[in-house]
Amino acid sequence: MSAPNRATLWGRILADELAQGGLEAVCVAPGSRSTPLTVAFADHPDVDVYSHIDERSAAYFALGRARRNGEPTALVCTSGTAVANFHPAVMEADRGRVPLLLLTADRPPELRDSGANQTVDQVKLYGDAVRWDAELPEPEPDERKVRSLRTTAARALSETVGVSPGPVHLNCPFRKPLEPIDLPDDVPDSFAETAAARGRSGAFVETSPGTRRLADDEDRPLRQALESAARPLIVAGPADPTDLRSLDPGAVTELADQLGAPILADPLSGLRFGSHVDERCEGSEESDGVRSIYGGYDAYISQLPDPDVVLRFGASPTSKSLRHWLRDADARQFLVDPAGAWREATFTATDLLSTEPKSVVDGLLEALTSADSEGRTGGANSVAVNGDWRSLFDAAERVQWETCDEALAANALESAPFEGAILASVVSDAPDPATLFVSNSMPIRDVDRFGRPRDAALTVLGNRGASGIDGITSSALGAGSATDDPLVLVTGDLAFLHDSNGLLAVDRCNVDATIVLLDNDGGGIFHKLPIENFDPPFTDQFKTPHGLEFDELASFYDLEFESVSPVDFISAYRRSLERTGTQVLAVEFDSETSHRQRDRLEERVRNSIAVEFDDESA
Amino acid sequence: MSAPNRATLWGRILADELAQGGLEAVCVAPGSRSTPLTVAFADHPDVDVYSHIDERSAAYFALGRARRNGEPTALVCTSGTAVANFHPAVMEADRGRVPLLLLTADRPPELRDSGANQTVDQVKLYGDAVRWDAELPEPEPDERKVRSLRTTAARALSETVGVSPGPVHLNCPFRKPLEPIDLPDDVPDSFAETAAARGRSGAFVETSPGTRRLADDEDRPLRQALESAARPLIVAGPADPTDLRSLDPGAVTELADQLGAPILADPLSGLRFGSHVDERCEGSEESDGVRSIYGGYDAYISQLPDPDVVLRFGASPTSKSLRHWLRDADARQFLVDPAGAWREATFTATDLLSTEPKSVVDGLLEALTSADSEGRTGGANSVAVNGDWRSLFDAAERVQWETCDEALAANALESAPFEGAILASVVSDAPDPATLFVSNSMPIRDVDRFGRPRDAALTVLGNRGASGIDGITSSALGAGSATDDPLVLVTGDLAFLHDSNGLLAVDRCNVDATIVLLDNDGGGIFHKLPIENFDPPFTDQFKTPHGLEFDELASFYDLEFESVSPVDFISAYRRSLERTGTQVLAVEFDSETSHRQRDRLEERVRNSIAVEFDDESA
Repeated sequence: MSAPNRATLWGRILADELAQGGLEAVCVAPGSRSTPLTVAFADHPDVDVYSHIDERSAAYFALGRARRNGEPTALVCTSGTAVANFHPAVMEADRGRVPLLLLTADRPPELRDSGANQTVDQVKLYGDAVRWDAELPEPEPDERKVRSLRTTAARALSETVGVSPGPVHLNCPFRKPLEPIDLPDDVPDSFAETAAARGRSGAFVETSPGTRRLADDEDRPLRQALESAARPLIVAGPADPTDLRSLDPGAVTELADQLGAPILADPLSGLRFGSHVDERCEGSEESDGVRSIYGGYDAYISQLPDPDVVLRFGASPTSKSLRHWLRDADARQFLVDPAGAWREATFTATDLLSTEPKSVVDGLLEALTSADSEGRTGGANSVAVNGDWRSLFDAAERVQWETCDEALAANALESAPFEGAILASVVSDAPDPATLFVSNSMPIRDVDRFGRPRDAALTVLGNRGASGIDGITSSALGAGSATDDPLVLVTGDLAFLHDSNGLLAVDRCNVDATIVLLDNDGGGIFHKLPIENFDPPFTDQFKTPHGLEFDELASFYDLEFESVSPVDFISAYRRSLERTGTQVLAVEFDSETSHRQRDRLEERVRNSIAVEFDDESA
Repeated sequence: MSAPNRATLWGRILADELAQGGLEAVCVAPGSRSTPLTVAFADHPDVDVYSHIDERSAAYFALGRARRNGEPTALVCTSGTAVANFHPAVMEADRGRVPLLLLTADRPPELRDSGANQTVDQVKLYGDAVRWDAELPEPEPDERKVRSLRTTAARALSETVGVSPGPVHLNCPFRKPLEPIDLPDDVPDSFAETAAARGRSGAFVETSPGTRRLADDEDRPLRQALESAARPLIVAGPADPTDLRSLDPGAVTELADQLGAPILADPLSGLRFGSHVDERCEGSEESDGVRSIYGGYDAYISQLPDPDVVLRFGASPTSKSLRHWLRDADARQFLVDPAGAWREATFTATDLLSTEPKSVVDGLLEALTSADSEGRTGGANSVAVNGDWRSLFDAAERVQWETCDEALAANALESAPFEGAILASVVSDAPDPATLFVSNSMPIRDVDRFGRPRDAALTVLGNRGASGIDGITSSALGAGSATDDPLVLVTGDLAFLHDSNGLLAVDRCNVDATIVLLDNDGGGIFHKLPIENFDPPFTDQFKTPHGLEFDELASFYDLEFESVSPVDFISAYRRSLERTGTQVLAVEFDSETSHRQRDRLEERVRNSIAVEFDDESA
């Protein structure tokens, strides 16, 4: 690796080492101090560079991309406030376990606290939100330093996908010249031939981050509990990006079937949609609902008997009803977490298994199979015949979707437009495959409530690590950059407004999307909260209606815009998905009306289920 | 202070105590967790509430307001990424010494790292960028806790304007109910009558933050140096918001006159514009330029003899020529800093005086006056007659402004549009009084270069603490909220785009501005740097042209938009300043052309000065 000067050398080695380690994409915001990094990545044949203006949007784009493909995306910015603009996405990446590598350019260390321009203290800027942080050595053609640079780069990349994937921060001080200007003797020709400068074929350090595994007998309590369970349950919360790829939905389904356990699948779990979802009998007389995967539980779960053993994967479920039901169940509750973290805020879980969901599923399947082949009776095998328990879920689920279908078709869509109906359609009419990114606040709750399990490869994503309203559009477009799937973003007007800068990526990063904009002119979610009854300050400080017309924003970003009435939504949605380019489909709602409809619908489901269960027990 | 529940009690006491301590304004972004704070501030008769959608913009609005009036502005947000969105402005407030009080709502402490929704670790989130951080006690009607709450609030507010003004962070955990719902016995009626709950008439704790003062003889080295100086110089860098209000420009001017020292006044120093600027002789044959205040130095300073004693106030000057000239001068260089910090990145200053500029100026004036009245000769008095030194500046300044006037009038405005000409006009044609907020990158440099000193109350502000391109529009509008002055914002297209969300404040916070948008379709400043010669990646990764048409953005935010040709700028500018409402005056430029013009103009000034000085010495 030769270079016209030492700053350029540093940039080139860093880019080279990261590319050797498998880095495929970097999001860059323009700046001067970061020139050595930007130039090196732009020159590199194996790294895609996505250019952004707003660092906050850049970081969320990187986050969305890494969330979609489970692989680290790097970020480059200049010194100063640019670095702090990454912070919101770093926070989300931390909580959501999304691999991000933050490369923040810095001025030379002696300038800290000297009043120098665009100079702040960037060391450990993200606190505990990053898995690792380090400061690169100052550029110099020194063998040990260059070995340190390559090793640090390799380790940093590896840490982003370690036992607890997440953000890693490398602070990168550079001094002028920052550009690839020839500076005779700054990097001697002979130095280019050193082992450190040349690097190796492949990564300089091959790091094997390993995973946490249970010792041989550590899953025995789980096995025993499941073997003797009368009402076993699997709860799949929002999946980490890396787990999304490692957990085989077919294996989980098989396990559930053998255990007689329903799987309550969060829309972000990677389990609600896919070829493992059995729709054979759907709609027919003998329908038994969806075989192992249940998605409508938010509406009915509180009416079912308590489980006695719960196996939980992923983060805390989106559904508050489900969380409260689990809290009140007093069941034996096993949390499986590959990082060994506690992600259960009711503190009612009883066991924490620090290992990957995949290894638990595989281990249980193996134990069940071998027990079966040994012809033993009782134990896990006997649980498999426990049909009554699952039939309750089948019945409840059938009621939920039938009630929803009726309500959505008859009432909501024509007389009183209802936000939930849009989310139901977004899911039911999404092409197969598709990637759906769903905003926080009401959209993700509505997908949870109204998004029916489907035998289709829908990758549903959301920022549920810290659940901010910021960066949604950028995250969606970033996810779109990592897949050939058609991309759908569902967002409310406040989230859309918050990250309007993110729309620039449609053009600059060449990502197309169907953007479903649920415009209820302000923060609809506050109608769900008691503050609704205190006005003022409700309207001015909480709902914050803005009266903005988003067609003008779409026009500014050169996007197609269509104002769609709720009844015409499905046809507009299908049309958009068949077209190239990015369309904004804006559907206006009154958020208060929608909340009242959600309440009524939930009540109707509960009443129907009560009748159904009464009938059965009668 | 009574309350229907403990969360409401906490919000009310906090708002009450802060208002008693003098807090006048708070910027609020909607959120649920922050409900007790938002409701309390919205209810409070003495606190103005500014509602924002984007927390980043909210924080910069608060920053701009506090920058303009030197008084703390508070900020309220919900838990999670909202808190990180404050970070860029916190960083600027730290470096720029702007008093901000950050009130971040949080979920109860036991939920940290539990996977609970919208829960991150907010404790010490801003690291060393805040002057003080504390976590409020959890709400409870307990006397000691309430005394602690009031004391903490009073101290926090006081710390924002302490010896080193800046941001202070109070993390505020709340549990439900967050709304002012009546919860019988949660706050006993009797508790409302306790001394702690009642508070005091006035602040609960009157804090006197004090200032650093030199001991009696500690300024003697400065006095002695100035007394024996042949070429004394005063350099006024960007002023801290609180110093802007305490330093009397008339006194500085008087001191300079007595010392025979020119004052090189940064456009952000508070000294370049005002009634102390003497324009009596301007333009006449006997013109001696502007008596004590010099503003055109960036173009000519390198051609003048070195100073031998330099007295510096404020932060590091905007002008790079000036910084380098001082670095190379090898002069005795006294930094005056009220916080005792080092704000001089060339490390050539020789003395640091940890005290307020005002006290140094007053002390020197007093010493000079008493020396004078005692009839002593020599010493400071003799310096006052050192006319030759100042006449060099007078001559150079005259050449600078004459050359600029000619060039701007004849060449630039008609044949090849020039960005610098717009900045010259923005300053020369601003009404008296006016507040001008100037963006980073080229606009602030052009105001420095082309903004001629004026006998007019122009408050020129910029975010030069960390010099980010973010939050500029919000900062300007925040500044506008603190004054009845006409408000002018000068911004480039990238800064305007970066903070487009800030435009919402025009309507929501009722601030009007004349927005001068210098649209050169990308990052013009990169043409100043060597990277210009490396394309690719120059255009794609540095200049980043976007081709956006800002009339559509203006239309989205319901602002008047006018595309103005450079020759018509002055009339459009004057017209806008006479109108109500907010107008965007967009002037298109080719940034590369502008840079070549800046270079040519600078060369012309240097040549003219060389001729002038040759003539004089001949």
